[in-house]
Amino acid sequence: MRNVEHIGIAVKDFSQANALYFQLLGVEPYKTEFVPSENVNTSFFRVGGTKIELLEGTTEDSAINRYIQKRGEGIHHIAFEVEDIYKEMARLKQEGFTLLSDTPKKGADNKLVCFVHPRSANGVLIELTQEIY
Amino acid sequence: MRNVEHIGIAVKDFSQANALYFQLLGVEPYKTEFVPSENVNTSFFRVGGTKIELLEGTTEDSAINRYIQKRGEGIHHIAFEVEDIYKEMARLKQEGFTLLSDTPKKGADNKLVCFVHPRSANGVLIELTQEIY
Repeated sequence: MRNVEHIGIAVKDFSQANALYFQLLGVEPYKTEFVPSENVNTSFFRVGGTKIELLEGTTEDSAINRYIQKRGEGIHHIAFEVEDIYKEMARLKQEGFTLLSDTPKKGADNKLVCFVHPRSANGVLIELTQEIY
Repeated sequence: MRNVEHIGIAVKDFSQANALYFQLLGVEPYKTEFVPSENVNTSFFRVGGTKIELLEGTTEDSAINRYIQKRGEGIHHIAFEVEDIYKEMARLKQEGFTLLSDTPKKGADNKLVCFVHPRSANGVLIELTQEIY
């Protein structure tokens, strides 16, 4: 794990949350992106060497809205940048962690991503992420 | 906000969680510290330019154990490093954020800290933190 690439926050109202995190962080999001595979709007704020990602579900049954219905708004996941996502997935599987997919998926912000089940990591949803070159 | 200083994770069993995050992150905690004012054991793992902090309550009614009773284990807070915590607290108050104390407190890892109420920030408990020199 080389770095915390970003911290993902599940929000109900994208424009309210973007305005609030602009107030809080003092920077505008450098990017907003709709990810059709996840039915989610995302925005990214740079803070030092990492990023805050806001996530708003665009359908009732999107993972983000199901999360909010269950737990309310809040921190949804931590994403760790890895050099080789396939190697890291194999290593974690061997160590006994439960992965949410057998192969990486295309995520937001030009990344390959895979999630580790929160059950495996003290209730924390962990994303592995690798830049696509 | 200069950087994400750390991400705090509430855990039930400190030694289980320390072992698991060692497996996950591939590094040992560089520090463990008991914070008597909060009745909490803490450990810190460096990951790139930020840190993961594990938090275990040491009394039934500690903030961490009350959090776990309500929400289960998981990500508890994000800490942002600020240059001048008094100035940043005044700025956020003026912007309408609710702070959990009127003055900073002494936190773990030689820091002055203050928390922003999750109600103010889309369900996210935010810590402001400034190194004590």
